[in-house]
Amino acid sequence: MDSLGLSTVTATDGKPATTQPAPTPAEYLARAVAIATENVRNAGGPFGAIVVTADGRVFEGVNRVTANLDPTAHAEVSAIRAACQGTGSFDLSGATLYSSCEPCPMCLASSLWARIDRVHYAATRDDAADAGFDDAVFYRYFEGVDADRAIMPVSDIELPAAERVAPFTEWQHTATRTEY
Amino acid sequence: MDSLGLSTVTATDGKPATTQPAPTPAEYLARAVAIATENVRNAGGPFGAIVVTADGRVFEGVNRVTANLDPTAHAEVSAIRAACQGTGSFDLSGATLYSSCEPCPMCLASSLWARIDRVHYAATRDDAADAGFDDAVFYRYFEGVDADRAIMPVSDIELPAAERVAPFTEWQHTATRTEY
Repeated sequence: MDSLGLSTVTATDGKPATTQPAPTPAEYLARAVAIATENVRNAGGPFGAIVVTADGRVFEGVNRVTANLDPTAHAEVSAIRAACQGTGSFDLSGATLYSSCEPCPMCLASSLWARIDRVHYAATRDDAADAGFDDAVFYRYFEGVDADRAIMPVSDIELPAAERVAPFTEWQHTATRTEY
Repeated sequence: MDSLGLSTVTATDGKPATTQPAPTPAEYLARAVAIATENVRNAGGPFGAIVVTADGRVFEGVNRVTANLDPTAHAEVSAIRAACQGTGSFDLSGATLYSSCEPCPMCLASSLWARIDRVHYAATRDDAADAGFDDAVFYRYFEGVDADRAIMPVSDIELPAAERVAPFTEWQHTATRTEY
């Protein structure tokens, strides 16, 4: 990728690339794939992701689930968290996420909460399944088939109505709240 | 909750509760609701969650999205991350998650990756919507209705086949890999 100058553009120092033409989507994606492979050599999982902000800043993330003892440390989540810290905002509107693999439901929903504009990926959930990962299983969980839901039942427990919504009541009464 | 002794039992010091009967599910859930309300008074979002491990250790999390500039810092994710750090494992098999509100898709999938056994909640996605949160919108996104998918299109970009799966190939060739 260096022949494309992408290693410069994808530096994670938060500075916009100014000296070269912007990489193409395929070039960004190839970079996400490259850092995924590098991450395996660094005791990480085989996943990499890049967030490109509306103004062209680039933030990288790789899968550190087992390395950091954090099941949420997927590449996409890591890239989103890095981008938010780097931009100083919890809102990445206008950004594009490039992922070496189709985002799992956690990463897809993380992208929604981060207000990412669009997502591009290389490998599919089935490629991930072939490599031993549960992305496809968890997508089926979200499709709501009873047998798949059995791996983790979710149910409400009835509390008094006022107690159930007490946090929201407090929220509505808090004039200084920051909505998102 | 102190009259139930729950504040002692739910200390986050990682020690099993040994001096009192285990709280009931409703008592754990009430504690999750209580810390959600407290969190609003501490510049956080109106959500709280508790992970109870198979051996009775209790770990808390609250929503710090805007406070920490981290759109993934939902209560459930925070509690899962705390539990994994506290137990020294990325696998919480046997644990139960109690959340003040029905987990959003991100939190549900985080729970799946963490191998949580079951989830209980108090308020619903519709209660959250009434308070201005997008949980219900994002659930509809997962239901795949085209109009809802338009808020964040997801698509693959074709790379050469060997490059597309290169991270997984590296993974399969890495004898020291830690699977999850």
